[in-house]
Amino acid sequence: MGEALRVGIAGLGTVGASVVRILAEKSAELTRQCGRAVTVTAVSARNRARDRGITLDGIAWFDDPVELARKGDIDVFVELIGGEEGAAKASVKAALEAGRHVVTANKALLAASGLALAEIAEKKGVLLNYEAAVAGGIPVIKTMREALAGNAITRVFGILNGTCNYILTRMEQEGISFADCLADAQRLGYAEADPTFDIEGHDTAHKLSILTSLAFGTKISPSAIYMEGISNITQADIRAAGELGYRIKLLGVAQRTDSGIEQRVHPTMVPTASVIAQVHGVTNAVAIETDILGELLLSGPGAGGNATASAVIGDIADIAKSRPGFQHGPVFGRPAKELAPYRKARMRAHAGGYFIRLTVHDRTGVFAAIAKRMADNDISLESIVQHASGEDSSDRKTVILVTHETTEAAVRKAVEGMEKDKHLLDKPQVIRIERAA
Amino acid sequence: MGEALRVGIAGLGTVGASVVRILAEKSAELTRQCGRAVTVTAVSARNRARDRGITLDGIAWFDDPVELARKGDIDVFVELIGGEEGAAKASVKAALEAGRHVVTANKALLAASGLALAEIAEKKGVLLNYEAAVAGGIPVIKTMREALAGNAITRVFGILNGTCNYILTRMEQEGISFADCLADAQRLGYAEADPTFDIEGHDTAHKLSILTSLAFGTKISPSAIYMEGISNITQADIRAAGELGYRIKLLGVAQRTDSGIEQRVHPTMVPTASVIAQVHGVTNAVAIETDILGELLLSGPGAGGNATASAVIGDIADIAKSRPGFQHGPVFGRPAKELAPYRKARMRAHAGGYFIRLTVHDRTGVFAAIAKRMADNDISLESIVQHASGEDSSDRKTVILVTHETTEAAVRKAVEGMEKDKHLLDKPQVIRIERAA
Repeated sequence: MGEALRVGIAGLGTVGASVVRILAEKSAELTRQCGRAVTVTAVSARNRARDRGITLDGIAWFDDPVELARKGDIDVFVELIGGEEGAAKASVKAALEAGRHVVTANKALLAASGLALAEIAEKKGVLLNYEAAVAGGIPVIKTMREALAGNAITRVFGILNGTCNYILTRMEQEGISFADCLADAQRLGYAEADPTFDIEGHDTAHKLSILTSLAFGTKISPSAIYMEGISNITQADIRAAGELGYRIKLLGVAQRTDSGIEQRVHPTMVPTASVIAQVHGVTNAVAIETDILGELLLSGPGAGGNATASAVIGDIADIAKSRPGFQHGPVFGRPAKELAPYRKARMRAHAGGYFIRLTVHDRTGVFAAIAKRMADNDISLESIVQHASGEDSSDRKTVILVTHETTEAAVRKAVEGMEKDKHLLDKPQVIRIERAA
Repeated sequence: MGEALRVGIAGLGTVGASVVRILAEKSAELTRQCGRAVTVTAVSARNRARDRGITLDGIAWFDDPVELARKGDIDVFVELIGGEEGAAKASVKAALEAGRHVVTANKALLAASGLALAEIAEKKGVLLNYEAAVAGGIPVIKTMREALAGNAITRVFGILNGTCNYILTRMEQEGISFADCLADAQRLGYAEADPTFDIEGHDTAHKLSILTSLAFGTKISPSAIYMEGISNITQADIRAAGELGYRIKLLGVAQRTDSGIEQRVHPTMVPTASVIAQVHGVTNAVAIETDILGELLLSGPGAGGNATASAVIGDIADIAKSRPGFQHGPVFGRPAKELAPYRKARMRAHAGGYFIRLTVHDRTGVFAAIAKRMADNDISLESIVQHASGEDSSDRKTVILVTHETTEAAVRKAVEGMEKDKHLLDKPQVIRIERAA
């Protein structure tokens, strides 16, 4: 039995308080699993007086997380402050430079500064673990960083934001509008007062940028991500998707192509019979495609105090099982200095199927004009649905086109052509289709 | 950069040959990921002359795997011989006793002797890794042993045998009989000439016994597993399941109950809308329920040379990243000496929903007699379907009962009562229903 692993925790919000509580409650079991005790010896938060439902007796208090990181009597610094700059970044940097292991749940920090922090960790020979930063309690980082050694990953994609999946699930299951679902999600605490970060795809993009680096051994490049949110998804899209055998999910997708690596976040049609299409509500899922193994899918709770705490504790336990002298694997799978520059694939080169929903004048020749624009751009159609739904007035018709594989460029040109033809009554809705097993 | 990790491989069948080939092909990438080269320095197999499509130049050859394990110039011994006794067991034991790390894909060996081998590994301070032994390329061992540290697992269940899932999938999708599906599976190489081991549940049971030990910290007890295979599943069951919103899967289930731990392998009804119900063909899936995290599901390729090789290489890479002096985590999550005795829950105490398909005389009073037997045993019904299908003659009717939660004992007594009433024309079909998200 080795000496106890001393843990310092900065940030005592929902996750931080859960980590302190669980480490205390599961102390005996963790000792058995790790071969040594795991003890919280120091914490830091803004308000010392606040009741968090946990006891901090005998635990050193630091007002300043950087001070805790640098001078605390700790072996591991756990950063649960949040934010890509400020105290989170300063304290993680200080801890690594002081030769302490770091565990963080901070996707924004890693997306912005993961590379620089990994270089410090690798130089100092300490671990920088971040399982909780992507897909909450799902062990996707461990799977990609350890289990898939030797596999070349060709595509990784997933449902990485519980708020968006909750909204899309309720829209489909209950037939209510995006705005009503969002309001409900805010009331239930699944969405922030300012929901932009979630619903416009920024949160998914942060997480995707980390998965991309792990998958392809490239530098983290969140700014290179193509991004569309879910705020313009309507009941008409969801119903049409269902009729055609698809379900709409907000996916983050990273894929190696001939022209570079695609990173994109957008509403996506996945086959209703696929495994990922059954991932409902706040649950997250990640699918990984490799040359050797084939396709692996992991699904589970993507957020919440306990799910995130579970991942943090798994990271701490891995450190507890290691010992001085242990040569740790690189933070992003390959040594940070050897990560390749990110070569961005042009979004216009994206190849795939497309769902296109048009609202048109119900006049002779309109459909022929649409068909000609598709043909002129070499787009062949898998199906065409012309709706005469109750909502359509006599002069408004809905036309839905599902294409075979084509390119983003071709679809954009075809849609621009249709807009020039002036037959469209609304902005066309274009949703990409993603292969999924 | 450390010294190369020297790997000895015993058994050069499909998996062994894949491991040798992939380690050579991915040499540069693995070196980058592990911080040292991973080199096959010795092999052992029965027939030296056989063409395996790989080059063994410069690799030492051993006719005897025990000799390789004991005296080979190796750091890791990889056992891909198979079988619970004989050369597999002798060589793994010899390697551990000689202080070499071991990687094995051998579920039968671990089910029978895992505990004794773990004790040697832990005494010698070496790793015994076995990701490939359960669910092929799915990282379920790593997830349970490492990622879920601190979580108390309440239930683990899964589709652990690709042959059975292939047969059940084709039976459902194509409406063909069990016998025809099995013949096809044999022709395609998905089933052995003697398929008993797969279709009667023995293979699933071996794998389940390992997951049970990891989940609950108990000694491995494969002989305590309740087991039913899929050979008596008919089209009538599959159709009725579909009508009622269920799909039939052969599951291995381990669950903590008040009276002990259930380990059971049997055909199971899972809700059609659940994630696990979408796992088709030879794909495997494992669901893990815990107190902290909630439910996690992993799905992917459960067999085949490459999927198994991927898991073996992940295990080897973990060893390559470790260094002398590293204190390894225990083989089954807790130290082998501290694993608790397995306390078996009585199958008759199992609580859950049941699907019961009866073929009865179409006579007045028959249905009342059936209903009375259910009521007498306090079984309440969720649904009742009386079929007048084309196959039923005027005197044969099919009655399907779906119960609310009840016990195995109650169902058995009710069915025995019905058999005494002499209204049944065939043996009743009883299929358990499993909750699944």
